[in-house]
Amino acid sequence: MTAHADLSPTLQLAIDLIRRPSVTPVDADCQKQMMQRLGDAGFTLEPMRIEDVDNFWATHGQDDGPVLCFAGHTDVVPTGPVSAWQIEPFNALIDEHGMLCGRGAADMKGSLAAMTVASERFVADYPHHKGKVAFLITSDEEGPAHHGTKAVVERLAARKERLDWCIVGEPSSTTLVGDVVKNGRRGSLGAKLTVRGVQGHVAYPHLAKNPIHLAAPALAELAAEHWDHGNDFFPPTSFQISNVNSGTGATNVIPGDLVAVFNFRFSTESTVEGLQKRVADILDKHGLDWHVDWALSGLPFLTEPGALLDAVSSSIKDITGRDTKASTSGGTSDGRFIATMGTQVVELGPVNATIHQVNERVLAADLDVLTEIYYQTLIKLLA
Amino acid sequence: MTAHADLSPTLQLAIDLIRRPSVTPVDADCQKQMMQRLGDAGFTLEPMRIEDVDNFWATHGQDDGPVLCFAGHTDVVPTGPVSAWQIEPFNALIDEHGMLCGRGAADMKGSLAAMTVASERFVADYPHHKGKVAFLITSDEEGPAHHGTKAVVERLAARKERLDWCIVGEPSSTTLVGDVVKNGRRGSLGAKLTVRGVQGHVAYPHLAKNPIHLAAPALAELAAEHWDHGNDFFPPTSFQISNVNSGTGATNVIPGDLVAVFNFRFSTESTVEGLQKRVADILDKHGLDWHVDWALSGLPFLTEPGALLDAVSSSIKDITGRDTKASTSGGTSDGRFIATMGTQVVELGPVNATIHQVNERVLAADLDVLTEIYYQTLIKLLA
Repeated sequence: MTAHADLSPTLQLAIDLIRRPSVTPVDADCQKQMMQRLGDAGFTLEPMRIEDVDNFWATHGQDDGPVLCFAGHTDVVPTGPVSAWQIEPFNALIDEHGMLCGRGAADMKGSLAAMTVASERFVADYPHHKGKVAFLITSDEEGPAHHGTKAVVERLAARKERLDWCIVGEPSSTTLVGDVVKNGRRGSLGAKLTVRGVQGHVAYPHLAKNPIHLAAPALAELAAEHWDHGNDFFPPTSFQISNVNSGTGATNVIPGDLVAVFNFRFSTESTVEGLQKRVADILDKHGLDWHVDWALSGLPFLTEPGALLDAVSSSIKDITGRDTKASTSGGTSDGRFIATMGTQVVELGPVNATIHQVNERVLAADLDVLTEIYYQTLIKLLA
Repeated sequence: MTAHADLSPTLQLAIDLIRRPSVTPVDADCQKQMMQRLGDAGFTLEPMRIEDVDNFWATHGQDDGPVLCFAGHTDVVPTGPVSAWQIEPFNALIDEHGMLCGRGAADMKGSLAAMTVASERFVADYPHHKGKVAFLITSDEEGPAHHGTKAVVERLAARKERLDWCIVGEPSSTTLVGDVVKNGRRGSLGAKLTVRGVQGHVAYPHLAKNPIHLAAPALAELAAEHWDHGNDFFPPTSFQISNVNSGTGATNVIPGDLVAVFNFRFSTESTVEGLQKRVADILDKHGLDWHVDWALSGLPFLTEPGALLDAVSSSIKDITGRDTKASTSGGTSDGRFIATMGTQVVELGPVNATIHQVNERVLAADLDVLTEIYYQTLIKLLA
């Protein structure tokens, strides 16, 4: 790995991490590198490999007092077509526009570098800080996520570890670093609906029951339904049908069933049971012979204004002059698992405009700003 | 081929034809055998191989006077899994229940044998009959049907041949031979509808346009629409969606478009243009970005009560004692092509309960009854 002696410690570490091709669930020694740095800074290290997933837990400080945990993932999504990249996706470079380019630059190796460097500085500057600084790092956030943060949280909860505050390094910013932090996420409830009919010939529809005809008005009603109005922190619950399939391929056969896959992104104004019942009521109202397989991906969580959000917001204001916006929009993140410990969780990271795309990139200078924000937050909460 | 000296001439010929494995468009010399018989009886023969399809036209009689044509097809649908058959599908047998079993027994080699034997008898018994007895036989009715009856009709029409009456040997009967004749068929109009949306992530529905949500109310309205009330001869026009597909397979992606395949079976109360306009109006009413590819399979045709239907009905009554029912239900047949010549067309054949299935069969005695009905009809119209 190149030293880039002229670059900041955060950028040097970010480049080092990006150059390790850690596509989920492969860690490619990213965690070894982070643990080396944190261990040298005095952290107590606890690797937690669970099944095929590398995770680690690290702490610095004392049992008394609050715990502020940095959380994140070393794994990245696949590159997609490498030929569509302007650079080698795992050969991180800073281009002529000052952009750090490479898979993981924004999601989220830049944040990992920033939180590592900020914590190194903090424990060096404040060796007798209050409580604990902790790290919870996984290599399976982008994948099935069964043996990553969720499993680590279960182990920590089983031994009564306490996490008061957590900053997840997810790229929360939209235009300028720090313009948005996520103080919660909607829940995600998936479902596979099967509507049964009776197969037959299109020339003899009276002998068949067309599941497409039967399902269409119910799907229309589900799509038009207002599930809740949201609240101060959440937009209204949204419902989307992602897939619908019915038919044998033949043009003269009425099919025997229809399958629709749909998903709720739901606010704290709705419950899983409530949504399930309302779907069932609509399907029953239309007299359907139906079955739904439900899959709950995550409950909604919310961190209301308080010590963590105040510290993060005022640090952003101090460093950038910006008034940050707390938002609960977007997809799910590992924050949902950590929130189950009663933890205040905020996501704060760089601009997310290019994540999961080719030519993923982030303004290099933003990672230094992010390091300062993390450092200031550590001071406000634990100095 | 076994002679089956103890069987009737019709059953002997039916067995002979079934034992020739003439899966569309292969004729397997079925027509050669029929032409041999008709030629021996004094018919003028005109083979018409068009592209890869064998057809023939045969006539007996004089140019003056009316023309009664028997029409049919020597090709059969595939056997499906032979292991599911109780007999070899191309080794015709009469079982212990008196059923003639084999592919084509009902659809329609039994009818071909009956019309051949009835015509042999008629021209022998009435050598100076009125007008002409004709045969229009194809080996592509079950397939694309481009070079079969349709092409033969075009050639006959081009040289001003006249067909007053036509009996198609399609298996029209439902329970007992002769209980139903078809005096018309509905039209068939197919369509492939594409509804365009905008692809996106289910977590950000405001950036996408979900074509499933957009299409569902329109599909529901199309499925609920009453297109016409039918008339004395036709049931109301029916609309069936046979296939609907949308989605990338991923559960978190809003798809970019939806494709639905649908089909009208339409009565003489509706027109192609009228149906197309009403579909367009409904799609437009729902504000969809849509496109439809239309495919007209056949216009409806109708033979109103008259000389042919009277002769057929009274022959059925004479031979079986049954009052036949004239119906226009069911799928399309080659009758639609012949009707374009201004011909009165009736379909009359054995019981259709097992057509296109494994263990296709027909009561052997019914084919002798059918022979008598055809013979009596010839007498009523041409003796």
